[in-house]
Amino acid sequence: MRKIHVIGIGAGDPDQLTLQAVRALRNTDVFFVLGKGEVKSDLTQLRRDMLDAHVPEGTYRVVEARDPERDRSAGGSAYSPAVGDWRSARADIYERMITEELGEEQTGAFLVWGDPALYDSTLGILEEVLERGRVVFEYDVVPGISSVSALVARHRTGLNRVARPVQITTGRRLAEGFPEGVDDVVVMLDAHQTFRQYTDQDIDIYWGAYIGTPDEILASGPIAEAAPRIERLRAEARERKGWIMDTYLLRRNPRDEHGNG
Amino acid sequence: MRKIHVIGIGAGDPDQLTLQAVRALRNTDVFFVLGKGEVKSDLTQLRRDMLDAHVPEGTYRVVEARDPERDRSAGGSAYSPAVGDWRSARADIYERMITEELGEEQTGAFLVWGDPALYDSTLGILEEVLERGRVVFEYDVVPGISSVSALVARHRTGLNRVARPVQITTGRRLAEGFPEGVDDVVVMLDAHQTFRQYTDQDIDIYWGAYIGTPDEILASGPIAEAAPRIERLRAEARERKGWIMDTYLLRRNPRDEHGNG
Repeated sequence: MRKIHVIGIGAGDPDQLTLQAVRALRNTDVFFVLGKGEVKSDLTQLRRDMLDAHVPEGTYRVVEARDPERDRSAGGSAYSPAVGDWRSARADIYERMITEELGEEQTGAFLVWGDPALYDSTLGILEEVLERGRVVFEYDVVPGISSVSALVARHRTGLNRVARPVQITTGRRLAEGFPEGVDDVVVMLDAHQTFRQYTDQDIDIYWGAYIGTPDEILASGPIAEAAPRIERLRAEARERKGWIMDTYLLRRNPRDEHGNG
Repeated sequence: MRKIHVIGIGAGDPDQLTLQAVRALRNTDVFFVLGKGEVKSDLTQLRRDMLDAHVPEGTYRVVEARDPERDRSAGGSAYSPAVGDWRSARADIYERMITEELGEEQTGAFLVWGDPALYDSTLGILEEVLERGRVVFEYDVVPGISSVSALVARHRTGLNRVARPVQITTGRRLAEGFPEGVDDVVVMLDAHQTFRQYTDQDIDIYWGAYIGTPDEILASGPIAEAAPRIERLRAEARERKGWIMDTYLLRRNPRDEHGNG
């Protein structure tokens, strides 16, 4: 039976690979890589460096495919259907790669930045391929250090405060309002710097871009003061590198005098 | 200057150590261990095994101290102050260990199960020690695979669904009601199997105990069907081992007919 590893490879620092991930890399015959185009070639190079560092040359093949174009023009409520189309298009590609490039007794792998459990489509797409029933395989998941864990580690702070919850959400959701019932919110996939909506509140922000890589940038502080600084850093970095991956934690300070924040 | 690493060592599988964590272990002169008493001696042994596997003998010392007793009788609103007292008591111990056992030019380390960012007190206590100002040190944080990441990896599912948020909370909070605005909720520190409150709802549960260890137990399914099974598994395991560490994800299915769960 074909086997597939879905391997979390950490947020950008190659030393964030786990021993389990290294073992899975060494146990792989074929790596499947979906390219995101030239703008993220740094990431593709980082992935290649990881293989060079940990897997003996000549023991594996890399199969590359072009990512389907996602329809980014569709906004608002059209988001989900657009994602659906994109997932199906990607499932077509996965299915073809697994069927044509992976031998019956071989092991393939998808390398996922961060943790495959957080805002990544690989698991959902593999399930879709299995449901179609045209190719059979086993798969397992190797958890990785998420950009969320890496962010707060670099800021030397926790995700939650004592006995309190934390929510992980998207920029799109945050634009609809600060989540109910939580004061600690991690925001991912925010292309619009939605934190700027909240500069009038008593919130601390912990922000980071390219976390764990040589290009890492960190900024934190009361949001009213830090937001313009982050906007500037972000614009400069984006201009310089052509792309940006950033994440942030918003920590709202308690409004009542009994809070012990 | 004294240095301290706060090292996330993963959820129980020694292979969940990152390369960065292994490097930090090897770079440590003194490991500080707070014992939790006999019931968790398995965990103490696991930690010792990690050191044996990765750090040359004779290059480090282990300093053990007894954890202060936490006042578990204090319930309800008394929780926070009780934690406060416990943290101060623990800060006393940390301060004394760092001052008396770590040389001015040495590096110490605290090994934290999972990720130091999630429901762990080490970072907060080190900040408290620094604020007291009686001993000076630098510290950094090595992120680890959390039990949350490990749980969903073993169940081969994501934490969030497409473009939706996820909340991480405690059993105590969940007892107050299902969190607002989210359908995916990870519950930690739940000694009372609070999921039983929700067996009348259309929720799937993904549960795991001793994740990543040879004792690992997993169970999942619609909550009405899975809850009694988990109760039984949990009681048996607790009886057998004398202690239990478990975590679960509750995934509520959408109520409207347009939801695509």
